[in-house]
Amino acid sequence: MSVRTRRFSELTWPEAAEAIERNAGVLIPIGSTEQHGHHLPLGTDALIADDLACAIAADEAQDLLVAPCVTYGYRSRPLSGGGPHFVGTTSASAATLMGLVQDVLESLLEQGFRRLALVNWHMENQNFIYESAYLALKRSPAAVANGARVMIAEAGFGGLSDEMMELLFPGGSFPGWDVEHAGIMETSLMLHLHPELVLADRAVDDEAERHPFYDMLPVPDAFVPKSGSLWKARQGTAEKGAACWPEVVEQMRRGIALELPR
Amino acid sequence: MSVRTRRFSELTWPEAAEAIERNAGVLIPIGSTEQHGHHLPLGTDALIADDLACAIAADEAQDLLVAPCVTYGYRSRPLSGGGPHFVGTTSASAATLMGLVQDVLESLLEQGFRRLALVNWHMENQNFIYESAYLALKRSPAAVANGARVMIAEAGFGGLSDEMMELLFPGGSFPGWDVEHAGIMETSLMLHLHPELVLADRAVDDEAERHPFYDMLPVPDAFVPKSGSLWKARQGTAEKGAACWPEVVEQMRRGIALELPR
Amino acid sequence: MSVRTRRFSELTWPEAAEAIERNAGVLIPIGSTEQHGHHLPLGTDALIADDLACAIAADEAQDLLVAPCVTYGYRSRPLSGGGPHFVGTTSASAATLMGLVQDVLESLLEQGFRRLALVNWHMENQNFIYESAYLALKRSPAAVANGARVMIAEAGFGGLSDEMMELLFPGGSFPGWDVEHAGIMETSLMLHLHPELVLADRAVDDEAERHPFYDMLPVPDAFVPKSGSLWKARQGTAEKGAACWPEVVEQMRRGIALELPR
Amino acid sequence: MSVRTRRFSELTWPEAAEAIERNAGVLIPIGSTEQHGHHLPLGTDALIADDLACAIAADEAQDLLVAPCVTYGYRSRPLSGGGPHFVGTTSASAATLMGLVQDVLESLLEQGFRRLALVNWHMENQNFIYESAYLALKRSPAAVANGARVMIAEAGFGGLSDEMMELLFPGGSFPGWDVEHAGIMETSLMLHLHPELVLADRAVDDEAERHPFYDMLPVPDAFVPKSGSLWKARQGTAEKGAACWPEVVEQMRRGIALELPR
Amino acid sequence: MSVRTRRFSELTWPEAAEAIERNAGVLIPIGSTEQHGHHLPLGTDALIADDLACAIAADEAQDLLVAPCVTYGYRSRPLSGGGPHFVGTTSASAATLMGLVQDVLESLLEQGFRRLALVNWHMENQNFIYESAYLALKRSPAAVANGARVMIAEAGFGGLSDEMMELLFPGGSFPGWDVEHAGIMETSLMLHLHPELVLADRAVDDEAERHPFYDMLPVPDAFVPKSGSLWKARQGTAEKGAACWPEVVEQMRRGIALELPR
Amino acid sequence: MSVRTRRFSELTWPEAAEAIERNAGVLIPIGSTEQHGHHLPLGTDALIADDLACAIAADEAQDLLVAPCVTYGYRSRPLSGGGPHFVGTTSASAATLMGLVQDVLESLLEQGFRRLALVNWHMENQNFIYESAYLALKRSPAAVANGARVMIAEAGFGGLSDEMMELLFPGGSFPGWDVEHAGIMETSLMLHLHPELVLADRAVDDEAERHPFYDMLPVPDAFVPKSGSLWKARQGTAEKGAACWPEVVEQMRRGIALELPR
Repeated sequence: MSVRTRRFSELTWPEAAEAIERNAGVLIPIGSTEQHGHHLPLGTDALIADDLACAIAADEAQDLLVAPCVTYGYRSRPLSGGGPHFVGTTSASAATLMGLVQDVLESLLEQGFRRLALVNWHMENQNFIYESAYLALKRSPAAVANGARVMIAEAGFGGLSDEMMELLFPGGSFPGWDVEHAGIMETSLMLHLHPELVLADRAVDDEAERHPFYDMLPVPDAFVPKSGSLWKARQGTAEKGAACWPEVVEQMRRGIALELPR
Repeated sequence: MSVRTRRFSELTWPEAAEAIERNAGVLIPIGSTEQHGHHLPLGTDALIADDLACAIAADEAQDLLVAPCVTYGYRSRPLSGGGPHFVGTTSASAATLMGLVQDVLESLLEQGFRRLALVNWHMENQNFIYESAYLALKRSPAAVANGARVMIAEAGFGGLSDEMMELLFPGGSFPGWDVEHAGIMETSLMLHLHPELVLADRAVDDEAERHPFYDMLPVPDAFVPKSGSLWKARQGTAEKGAACWPEVVEQMRRGIALELPR
Repeated sequence: MSVRTRRFSELTWPEAAEAIERNAGVLIPIGSTEQHGHHLPLGTDALIADDLACAIAADEAQDLLVAPCVTYGYRSRPLSGGGPHFVGTTSASAATLMGLVQDVLESLLEQGFRRLALVNWHMENQNFIYESAYLALKRSPAAVANGARVMIAEAGFGGLSDEMMELLFPGGSFPGWDVEHAGIMETSLMLHLHPELVLADRAVDDEAERHPFYDMLPVPDAFVPKSGSLWKARQGTAEKGAACWPEVVEQMRRGIALELPR
Repeated sequence: MSVRTRRFSELTWPEAAEAIERNAGVLIPIGSTEQHGHHLPLGTDALIADDLACAIAADEAQDLLVAPCVTYGYRSRPLSGGGPHFVGTTSASAATLMGLVQDVLESLLEQGFRRLALVNWHMENQNFIYESAYLALKRSPAAVANGARVMIAEAGFGGLSDEMMELLFPGGSFPGWDVEHAGIMETSLMLHLHPELVLADRAVDDEAERHPFYDMLPVPDAFVPKSGSLWKARQGTAEKGAACWPEVVEQMRRGIALELPR
Repeated sequence: MSVRTRRFSELTWPEAAEAIERNAGVLIPIGSTEQHGHHLPLGTDALIADDLACAIAADEAQDLLVAPCVTYGYRSRPLSGGGPHFVGTTSASAATLMGLVQDVLESLLEQGFRRLALVNWHMENQNFIYESAYLALKRSPAAVANGARVMIAEAGFGGLSDEMMELLFPGGSFPGWDVEHAGIMETSLMLHLHPELVLADRAVDDEAERHPFYDMLPVPDAFVPKSGSLWKARQGTAEKGAACWPEVVEQMRRGIALELPR
Repeated sequence: MSVRTRRFSELTWPEAAEAIERNAGVLIPIGSTEQHGHHLPLGTDALIADDLACAIAADEAQDLLVAPCVTYGYRSRPLSGGGPHFVGTTSASAATLMGLVQDVLESLLEQGFRRLALVNWHMENQNFIYESAYLALKRSPAAVANGARVMIAEAGFGGLSDEMMELLFPGGSFPGWDVEHAGIMETSLMLHLHPELVLADRAVDDEAERHPFYDMLPVPDAFVPKSGSLWKARQGTAEKGAACWPEVVEQMRRGIALELPR
């Protein structure tokens, strides 16, 4: 089956009606507007979330649409995004983010869509968007009775193959996903997906002085690398991105095929 | 002065820092995801709001950036957008919309931006986004003391020249801006700006059976044309859009030059 | 049919029970407490809203009651009410106004009233009170199933006859409804309805230096006339008010007769 | 000193400015729209609150204004007002009531008023309006630094003289203030203040079957008298009202003179 | 019938399932963390509320469980708890307290519990927790249809016998329950229930300079005794506590037996 | 230095004043009331959080107090706690949890405490309590200026030594912390800390059928083990708990010593 476009925003309403009729699903990409070091754009998370949703939807067999991306995410946290003090980082409060995702879900459920997925690429949105999904379904008993389901993919992917980990972080140099912010993987993905938006020559290898298991407010300087790259951005390459991306996409595709079958 | 990009989301944070240093302004486009008849896409309002912001910012002399568009707007109302019962229309509640715009404004004010403008293209967002601006400034006394100002352009433009009105609505056939939804002007603008997204052959000339000065809930069928076009969409042309657009853009540019000088 | 009183607040509860039994309607007047120039009282909008509701209800055939007036409205806006900086202007936030109107509607729906109308006379309340009605009905599915309907008359009237316009604004001098605040029409209506509350000799003809299509915060001095009258208050007369009032009332009566028949 | 009117809503804004200049105080009456038995109107609490504020303000020496009454109070409770199931009772939620009173207080503080009092006549509003005052002052540090103060008179009076108690409740028959709802005192006050609004011949002596120290939801029938009068309404007389009223007024006047001196 | 424990928090979930099966009830103790003079601990109200719930539940015949205590109560008020300016007093806002109690009730109702009681020992929580119960039941129509009921015991007890009053407040020296804060009764109960937590030698007999029927903010010094004991703490004894406690417990037990029978 | 008690709730207010004077810190334990399999009590998380705070505070050199535990946590999630459908699980919404922790922090900051730490033992509370701390500090500028700091220890510990991991999960059998719910570590800690509350003979080794990297609502049966133990509870022993506990405690102590020095 082939449709004119997978972008929800590009459909006319009669096309949306046909999509509901076919039991098409809707993916809602969720990102952030957040500093990503000296070399990646503020919109990195939103771009990747949207790319990921589009790549999933490119599998026509699943009949999925991509809703407009939630581009303002929850506040950046010091240990996973540099925190609130970098300029450019433009965030939503918890209440607003939860409300927005809940409204969008309720609105789609009310229209009759029954296969919904939150495709998130910003760690700080975790838990908040689960609450959105929980409340949206609680207030949509008719949709639930009619079989509506929501996937909450807060992590974007569940892990990479050993080969891929070795490619990205050779010799067991993986520092943990929380510092994978404007680091090797994100830089590689952006070089693969949006090379024109990467200022590669400005990338720096950086690291916080300290990276404890707890957070502190006000944020200690030692918790945040000056560049905003939480890890070795210069090791990112377009090749690594090209290798890694299909693995990420495939995991999400499989998950959706399993949990939200047509 | 020339900068790499006017898209806020494409900047790195050091570029955002430079922009603040230069006292660059930020435009926040606000639209909707809402039915626009048989021929225009759901994202029409968001697209036009974003286009308008970009067109304003194309005047390099004003040094303006364009923040990510607020793509989910307030609920569509029956008399100006067809109301909540068209599928595809995916909306935010008043509380969420107000919270989101307020958060974005507070976030930008905190970073040090002082020239801000809300560029809206969805009538139903009116008043809500004023409250956002009011509260954001009330909670940012330091920014206000430092000269921060917010323009709230709820209407996108203040009126068109007599010549333009005659071109768009010949012979005094102007039906009022509230029904200019997926009608002549919006269709013309979309044919000019995004012809590839218009299904022109599906456009219909339509009109509600009744269009009173008050609203009713639940929505009476007679208030809403079946097609979702509130007026004569077939009279829209790319030429009219090309003629009209610069007049719209110019009004906003002048307003910003006057109220938010560098 | 004749009842002891049309004021909801003057009924006993058994009389309210009888009213529900008869399927009587309830009008909820909504105004503001807001500066109205040198000559009109702060309560002007609330008084006119309440007068309008009472005048509508004076048509016994429609069997309507008038609920206590919502006297604190949304913040005054610079271009339509002078804005927040006049003393005397005492306002509710968007959240509070929405909550109050929603609570009153839900409460009346729960009692069994099914013919409800919001009768508003304060432009700034627009959209907020629509959200109240929308949410109240969404949370009252049993009432909706039972035929409950809400009219949202945000504007009080839909326009005046050409004769009336010529009487009020002779020679095509109509400046737009947004500046009709403590101007010719409101002054005339108050002189007709509450002459004892008008300090007519203090009325001034005033006008803002600039009146653009957008708003600014903080409010530029040039947007607001010093007197608080947005237009030529001295041209208001009791005669104009007496001529105009029945036309306003009649429009609302017809609307209610049509949309909320007994 | 004599002023044209003590009603805040009847002032023009320049008169409000003069009042602030003189350091005039503002009383905010708070009542309810709630069943009051077979003989008293739904607006009884709002009327008495407003009357009380006006009576206090009639002492010109204190230079007090009376703001528009908050006419929708918190939900009626079974043991002190009959509870939610009487038709006519039209209530605000806790969140709305708190928000409204807070907004009004903040608005008056921002204008420069420094002597404020909440004059309440609806037991169920207690604690909620204290929170309003607490939050309004917390968010108005400049006003507090400038000497602003708020009296929270949740009870309207502190007790009556022994003579008055004997007059109202002869032979020690006082049943407690919580059941003094549409009972002897309220009936007497209304017969004194608004005899035209009392359907005296319909008054009944009533009493709940049980009146425990706790509440139950859903409300047991035994907790609420069928008539809605919680006590012996037929013992109310205009004479008792006339005797009692000055004692109530005087207590409030003394309190205000002591706590909010000019 | 005998169960392993009456503490809800000590049950396993299969034991909770059995309790629901048996139609066991759940008591939710609600207290505060608030100054209680020189001699009683900050947790006094929470301790007594929890003790009271446990004592009620010790009557095995009623098959009641005790949920975790709500230990942070509404803000202390000057006239009944000393107000916000004593250090140690750590409070919840109205919105938070209402939300927490509502969430707990909704959660228990959803699990299937149908006999619920709020056991409160902090005057300032009154009305707020009623709103919680009201809203929880409104949003749980299935539970209500299934017979769920909530007791709201805001006062802990309804009054004491004449003998007990004479024992506690000999010679008619009872000053009113509102100042019974860290006074004779609370001191006595704590000496009976938790003698190890009472610094009896530091107790002082104290009294506010003035104790009017209204509140003031900011709090006048004269309204609050310096020690934080609102009354004669030194007259409290373990004997009085031992005598008084069973009377308090018995009232609650009878109420629950009557209103929430198994 | 030695004080009478480290429990905040057991202090009198003058003792709280002394603690502030000494610049004592306050730990706020945060847990949940949530199913923990067949053998652990519903209060497991709250107990461990409270135990952890007390154990940290037992290091007198740091001069720390333990505030009353937040015993109702955010909703249990399917993959880390079994989800909402186990009876016994009694949760707070996101809004309530955030509000409560924020209120407590603001209250302590206002009193003058400057060394604060959130000690959490319920994964689902993550991010929500960060927002609480963020907002509390944002609204307490005077406290921040005075050096106040908040630690947000969402995880309780940062990892265990290799020896300890081998002891708990021999042979590399560690399944990930998210399923360590009523599993080996929690069971061991409870056997060590509260053996009387563990029904050890009912413990089962369990595991979800599927454990993907995303969540689904409504919850698929395959995501949740029937017993509620997410892992091999029977491998928990008091010995393992005794070995593990000091390592956990020590990490937190070091963190606090480093970040919140006296």
